[in-house]
Amino acid sequence: MAGKVFFSVTMSLDGFMAPEPMPVEDVFSPQGQSDPRVQHWMAKWSRLQAWIFPQRFFRENLKLGEGGEEGTDNDIARATYERTGVSIMGKRMFDAGELAWPDDAPFHTPVFVLTHTGREPWERPGGTTFHFVNDGIASALDQARKVAGDRDIRIAGGADTIQQYLDAGLVDEFSLTLAPVLFGTGIRLFDHLDPDGITLTQTRTAASSRVTHLTYTVGER
Amino acid sequence: MAGKVFFSVTMSLDGFMAPEPMPVEDVFSPQGQSDPRVQHWMAKWSRLQAWIFPQRFFRENLKLGEGGEEGTDNDIARATYERTGVSIMGKRMFDAGELAWPDDAPFHTPVFVLTHTGREPWERPGGTTFHFVNDGIASALDQARKVAGDRDIRIAGGADTIQQYLDAGLVDEFSLTLAPVLFGTGIRLFDHLDPDGITLTQTRTAASSRVTHLTYTVGER
Repeated sequence: MAGKVFFSVTMSLDGFMAPEPMPVEDVFSPQGQSDPRVQHWMAKWSRLQAWIFPQRFFRENLKLGEGGEEGTDNDIARATYERTGVSIMGKRMFDAGELAWPDDAPFHTPVFVLTHTGREPWERPGGTTFHFVNDGIASALDQARKVAGDRDIRIAGGADTIQQYLDAGLVDEFSLTLAPVLFGTGIRLFDHLDPDGITLTQTRTAASSRVTHLTYTVGER
Repeated sequence: MAGKVFFSVTMSLDGFMAPEPMPVEDVFSPQGQSDPRVQHWMAKWSRLQAWIFPQRFFRENLKLGEGGEEGTDNDIARATYERTGVSIMGKRMFDAGELAWPDDAPFHTPVFVLTHTGREPWERPGGTTFHFVNDGIASALDQARKVAGDRDIRIAGGADTIQQYLDAGLVDEFSLTLAPVLFGTGIRLFDHLDPDGITLTQTRTAASSRVTHLTYTVGER
């Protein structure tokens, strides 16, 4: 079935999808690189995402060069990208990405950014166009459905945006890549939710030597 | 290698291994059964543990009757039991179990209970003997090693006891059965730890239609 609404994130074994909040300008500034807080943040982030960096698909998509690993992790990273006809993300994720992504942003589809400020669509080389939505998550999803074609709609993040869609009953399924790391502190994936309203069914599990990929469907409310 | 120190627990997708703390006498009292707080507690616990109740091994070990499911979940439950030469548990878990287990307690090995009060060993039918240890987790582990024979040492729980052993670098490996439920609140498995001191390697993943069983080894400090 095309047109599914899903998210796909990497989660630590203790339930975090990112280190503690950190101003993006600190992370990406030249001074930031020598700030111990930023170094600690980057170390945690790198341990969490360690599975993706060596993958052939990741290297291709971010134009990091030839080669890379192939196998379960690579197949899943590629399949997640290929099923995605449009992404929806929060403003914080966009702000970080605006500093981190190459000019040729790694989506190659329309992307809807949830924000409170107006901005004209921003077209990037390679087919990514960012649209800025001011009237809420349901409106962003409606707009996303119109351009998804026969592909699916990815709630890209961050945690707060995923939680809003999940709590509103608007997510059909999700995938977690469970990384063998403990964060202790950070941004939890499953937080600020009414768990009694969410019924899950485990549908697929695939493990590599590094991580385990788990997929769940979300029941009707 | 025999004599490994391990724990094996069921965890919700958001990282909880039990509902919020509840006085055990409330849960097991006749009045408790009609208390909405207790009913909510039992409903959460039952959703988390739903995978184990129908298993043939579980039914046999608790003398619940013939039959039951066989397959991955049953094999793993049985193997966890069979590798265990001795268990170590906290006082709260013992107190709850004292009310919940049948006379023929489901361990059939020595069990060391961490407590601050003295008590003579308590021998149960079927081979379970509870020993009460007053001088800390390292002493309990030393005593456990002496009686484990060629089998392994299970840190049975609760969360606080597991965390103490994990944080002290005394756990060799652990298994999580990841259940497709969200708790929102409760007792977290990975809490009160220094995560930077814990290095994990994913060693095995096995999924049934209900849950995913994940095994990790804990690196040397």
